[in-house]
Parts: sequence; structure tokens; C-alpha cells
Amino acid sequence: MLRLVMKFGGTSVGSVERINEVANIVKNEVVQGNEVVVVLSAMAGETDRLVNLAKGISDSFTPAEYDTVVSSGEQISVGLLSAALNNMDINARSYMGWQIPIITNANHKSSRIESIRSETIINSLQKGLVCVIPGFQGVSNEGRITTLGRGGSDTSAVAIASVIEADYCDIYTDVDGVYTSDPNKISNAKRLDKVSYEEMLEMASLGAKVLQTRSVETAMNNEVLLRVLSSFDAKENLKEGTLVCDEDKITDKRVVTGITSSLNDTKITLVGVRDKPGVAAEIFMSLADSNINVDMIVQNISEGGSTTDITFTVPKVDADKSEKIMSGITESVPYERIIIDNKIAKISVVGVGMRSNAGVASGMFNVLSDNGININVISTSEIKISVLIDENKAEKATKMLHKFFELDK
Amino acid sequence: MLRLVMKFGGTSVGSVERINEVANIVKNEVVQGNEVVVVLSAMAGETDRLVNLAKGISDSFTPAEYDTVVSSGEQISVGLLSAALNNMDINARSYMGWQIPIITNANHKSSRIESIRSETIINSLQKGLVCVIPGFQGVSNEGRITTLGRGGSDTSAVAIASVIEADYCDIYTDVDGVYTSDPNKISNAKRLDKVSYEEMLEMASLGAKVLQTRSVETAMNNEVLLRVLSSFDAKENLKEGTLVCDEDKITDKRVVTGITSSLNDTKITLVGVRDKPGVAAEIFMSLADSNINVDMIVQNISEGGSTTDITFTVPKVDADKSEKIMSGITESVPYERIIIDNKIAKISVVGVGMRSNAGVASGMFNVLSDNGININVISTSEIKISVLIDENKAEKATKMLHKFFELDK
Repeated sequence: MLRLVMKFGGTSVGSVERINEVANIVKNEVVQGNEVVVVLSAMAGETDRLVNLAKGISDSFTPAEYDTVVSSGEQISVGLLSAALNNMDINARSYMGWQIPIITNANHKSSRIESIRSETIINSLQKGLVCVIPGFQGVSNEGRITTLGRGGSDTSAVAIASVIEADYCDIYTDVDGVYTSDPNKISNAKRLDKVSYEEMLEMASLGAKVLQTRSVETAMNNEVLLRVLSSFDAKENLKEGTLVCDEDKITDKRVVTGITSSLNDTKITLVGVRDKPGVAAEIFMSLADSNINVDMIVQNISEGGSTTDITFTVPKVDADKSEKIMSGITESVPYERIIIDNKIAKISVVGVGMRSNAGVASGMFNVLSDNGININVISTSEIKISVLIDENKAEKATKMLHKFFELDK
Repeated sequence: MLRLVMKFGGTSVGSVERINEVANIVKNEVVQGNEVVVVLSAMAGETDRLVNLAKGISDSFTPAEYDTVVSSGEQISVGLLSAALNNMDINARSYMGWQIPIITNANHKSSRIESIRSETIINSLQKGLVCVIPGFQGVSNEGRITTLGRGGSDTSAVAIASVIEADYCDIYTDVDGVYTSDPNKISNAKRLDKVSYEEMLEMASLGAKVLQTRSVETAMNNEVLLRVLSSFDAKENLKEGTLVCDEDKITDKRVVTGITSSLNDTKITLVGVRDKPGVAAEIFMSLADSNINVDMIVQNISEGGSTTDITFTVPKVDADKSEKIMSGITESVPYERIIIDNKIAKISVVGVGMRSNAGVASGMFNVLSDNGININVISTSEIKISVLIDENKAEKATKMLHKFFELDK
């Protein structure tokens, strides 16, 4: 007997037919004697519909009311699935976030889970019930509905799996696993049988949309075994997904595991910055104060010693805000001019094997140079190398690197 | 300063524009210094959408899950209105049924309110907040979401008005009050300034769709002053609606207050029933056991003494079920044959003045007879006379009676 958390995303429950299909996948586990908790997103399109209603009322919609409105999407899907299971003679019931409860902080629209009353769930499982729980939502200590922010359903599933000590947290989605690169763009991308938390974390934050970053973090910190599975070919392809686990559990190690390409960044260059201590701190503190995540930073060698150029990247959605902040600090940080570049792509090569393999970086740079692709900015971590290049070259670069590191084999 | 409950139906909050309009109507009361509780239905069409999703899953959808799904409609509308009010600088917040709480029994899909924690609402009002509460929903003692059944939002509003001792419970709808007859069919129907609880109760249960029967009952039992007002011409026509109140408060008494016409009944006749004690009890107990509300009953004088005909009406939706039940009791209640008639209309004349005025019934029968309209069945109460006639004659009968009792004056 296994104890499973099964999480299904919006497209997996996008219609009555799909909900019945999900009920069949759940039933399949139940009849094998497994204990099952199901975590659901809202039906595809539903959250957008609700967000648009809210936008229609006001751009500065009250956050607590926003959560009340938007959380209803998951309330609908869990009610429908519970009844669909009942209809198949499976004992099941829905639990809203406040009924368990899943306590979060009161930071509406992007709350964090503080605690989950696992007894509610475990007692229910021991009575032979399937618990169907809405992802994405919780309740604050003040008793108001909260939401975890977009993509929060994965995090809900992992957090629940952790507190009830589930054997696996299965993330059912519209793809059948994690690939060496985006299979929509790289036709010979291969599905990975296993990937380490660290690699998945890098790949998630770099734009592989399979899992939400915070959920991978939570899984890593609590050693929850994650499986990425398809809800669309579940019958033929059962459990042939990707296991996200500790590095130690992966025997067949590659140097490079995956290659990602992202168009979500803006490059900002401050030209002719007075080169004196405290300048970098001033720039990046001012951005951090506005909750803007700066990713890559490069400071060029100053010519003559009096001025320097500072280049950094921010999320594209924060580009305008960042420009405004930079124009507000010219008194304390004088600079000649600012260059904003939106036409860039970030290409990253990820793999835990890099730790013990020199030569990945030089191999990567050679491939790009051989193909006439100019590198703007480089940044590296222990298991990742990212470069900024012209966005028009992104697909070519990804293909060439995918081939060079033999990910199609 | 008044303490008001303002209830708005589905068409009144049917779009973002309508919700902003409702916010304006609420604001108008707040700026006059009144304490305001708002009770809302789901946006028009939303409940039907959710009910259809549930039907798509199963015809025997689990009742508790049905309530979870369907109650989300009101959750959305209260969140949107609260934020719309905030956007107009009015302090307001939403309270779900479980947040107050509004405790109901666990009879899902048609629960009854058992208690409302009025302190939650009154404390909030005293802090200067507008409380925005979903109608139709509550929470059971087991902590699950319940609903009161269709039209339950009116009942929620009246029950809340009662426990917080509101001065008025204002029911805003798409018509501007209660009319002497359906203004869509009788062009010279007149709006009533005041109508007694008893009359409203008869008219509501007879098919005047302005107020839900149970809400009028609750208002009468708790002496809540109800006002029926239009949310569509609220500015020009403010407070020119109908007051539903105790008979004593109405000085200008008419003999007949209103005339209703309903096509919701089926007439069933059992021909040649053995005439012996206990037969009627047997028939109507078997229907009551299946929760079928029998309305009119007539037993014809038996010819010769050995058999009799029994005629009764049931709601059209229960006609098939009733026929099945009747064919199941032939052993204990033998009869020759059954006649089912769906092509009937029930025309009713309502008025508290009837109590002290003989001649209403004879006047009614004369008018019908003069117009060649045959009466099938008659039933009367203290303040009402109902007759069954051919459905094709319904409009004519209503018009003639409306004129005869001078309701157009």
C-alpha cells in the first residue's frame, strides 16, 4: 500500500469529460489499495475568467477580496471531482483550505503556508476516504481565504505530501515528464527518467514550465519524492514520467541534464557610472526595496579608473519599474546614460555532473562562437551556466547545444 | 440613522457594470449615515452554469459537493462588490456563511438556517464597515458548506435582518415592487404601496416571482419590514417600491389586493375509487412520503354510494412521479382509471379584505361564467380564492377579474 498525493493541473480538469478521466486515474490507485489525496487546480480558463472580472472592477482590487473571488475556481473543481468519484462508488469528499485547515500568513495573493492540520487528512484516509483538496488556497489566522499566487497548486500538493508523509507526490500535467529541453522547440528532446531537486530547481526557475519553483524547493527541503506524469495518456503510459529526487538516488549521471531557453528577461546597462565604493550596493538595494529580482550582474573593467559600466537583468515585467527607479537615484549614483534591451534570450545549461567536470563552460562557449552567436553576459552557479544572447539566435543556440552535449541520445 | 439589509438578486449583479451600479446604491445609503449589510445572489447565469457542470458529472450528484460547487457563485459576487465599494472609498468586506457563521441544518441543497452569529455582523457595522454577505449559503455543524435551495438569498437577507434588528430589509430586484397582477401580462396592473405579509405569502406561493415564499414567512414571523425596490431605476425612483408589512399598518384597505395566474400545476383525477374510510389518507400519505406537495383536493359526491372520483393537483415537475406512485397503490386503493391533465391554469384572487367582505367568491364565479370560462376545481382560504381553468383561458380570466375588482384604479 502506498500513500499518494495526486495533483492535477487546470488542463487536466478542463471539462466534465476530463474530470471523469481524472476520476478514473484516481480510481485506478484506490482499487490497488493505495491511500489517495487529490489536489486540484481550477478548471482551465476559470482563474483567468475570475481575474478578468476582478480587473473589470478595479486595477487595485482589494487583495483579500481577490483571494475570495479567485479561490472559488478550485472550490468548483474539487466539488465536481468528489462527486464524480462518488458516482464511481469511490468514497471521496472535498476539503476546502479552511476546513482542514491549511493555515497561511495573511499576505494575500501570494501567501505562504505556515501549517497544515494533517490529522484531518490522515483520519479521513484511515476511514477509507479519498480527500480532494483545492490547491492554491488556504486560510489566514484571521479566518480569511488566502491564495498562494499563480502556480501555487504544486506547492500545496508538495506541502500536503510532506505533512502526511506520502510515498510520492505525483504531479499530473499535460506533458509526460521533464525533458532535456522544450520538446515543442527541440524535436529530439528526450524525457528524463530521473532529475535531481537541484537541477529541477534551476530548470524550473529558468523557464521549464513543468513545475513551479517554490514547490520544488519545498520538495527538496522535505525530501518529498516528486513524479511528473501525464494525465492525458495515463492508461497506456502509467508511471512513465520523471522522478524528481535526491541526487544520490540517480546512478546514471550525465554531465549536462537539460538546456533551457527563456525570453523573460530585460537587460539594463548603466553607462559611465562613477566608480567608487558603495555604488553597486546603492543600485541593487534600491531595486530589492521594490521587490525586483535582479538575476545576472556584470561590472565591466573601468577605463582609466574613473567610470565603469554596470549591466544587469531583471524580469521583463519589472523593466519599466526598474528604469524609473534608476532615474530616481542619479543624485547618489551619477551615470551618463541607461540602455534598456528587451531583445535578449537567456540560454542555460544545467547538470549536477558539472561539479566534477571541467570543460562544460568552454564547450558551451565554443559551440556558440562556432555558430557566430555573440555572448552578452555570462553567469554561473555550481550546476548551471547561463548566457545572454540575441533573442533571434535562441532556437539555433539551444539546438546546437542540445546536440553538442548529446542530450538526444 | 437606519440599519438596513440590502439584498440584490442575480440580474442586479449580472455584470461588472451592474455591480458598480449596486455599489453606488449602497454608497448612497452609507453616505447618509446608515449602517448597511448587503446580501447578494450569484451573478445572473452563474448558478445555472454551475448546476449544469454538476449535471454533466451525474444526475445523482452528491448533495454536500453540490453545495460546495454551487455556493461559489455567491462567493464571487460578494468579493467583487466588496472590492467595488473599497474602490469608492467605502469600508466594506465580504463574509462567507462559514465566516460569520450562519449555521444551518445538514439537509444539503435545501438547508434551513438554525442560527446566525449576529455579533460578527454588528461588531463590523459598529466599526463602520459595510458587511457583504452571500445569500443562499451557510455552514452545517459538521463544518460543511450548505445551501438553502433556489431563491434562498431572500431568506438569508430576512434572517439576517431579523437577528441584527434591521429597520428594513430592502429586496432590490428587476421590478420596482409588487403589482396587482403580472405587469408583463396585464398592462394596467398597478404597483401596490403596501401589502400585508399574509397577502404576499399567498401571492408568492401562487407564482408572483418577486419574493420567495420562505422569506416572506420568515419576515412575518419575525416582524421584519420588507421593501421591494428596483435596482435598475434606483436613482430616479428611490424607495418608491412596495412595503410588505403587518396588516395593521395598512390603512387604505382593498377587498382584493392582487390576482395571480400560474401554469405550474398538473391535475390528477382518480376515477371510480372504492368509497370507503381511509382511502383519501392512503392516497395522500403515499404522495407526502415522496415529498410531493398536493395543493387542491376535491372529492366528488359518489353516485350510488360505492365509488367516487378524487381530483387533486401537484406541481407539474412531480406529475410523472405522482402517476407512478398512484399506479403503485392500486392494490390497497382500487380505482378504474387515472386522468392526468397538464393544460390547466390556477387563477387566484387574494386580499385580506375578503375576511370581512362576503361576495368576492360569487363575484369571481360570475365574471368567469359571464365570459364562458368553465371552473374545474375551487379551493379557498381565509384571504384567497383559487380556481382551476383551461390554460388557454388564463389570460382572459385574469384580465376580466382585474377589471371587475377595480385593481386598475
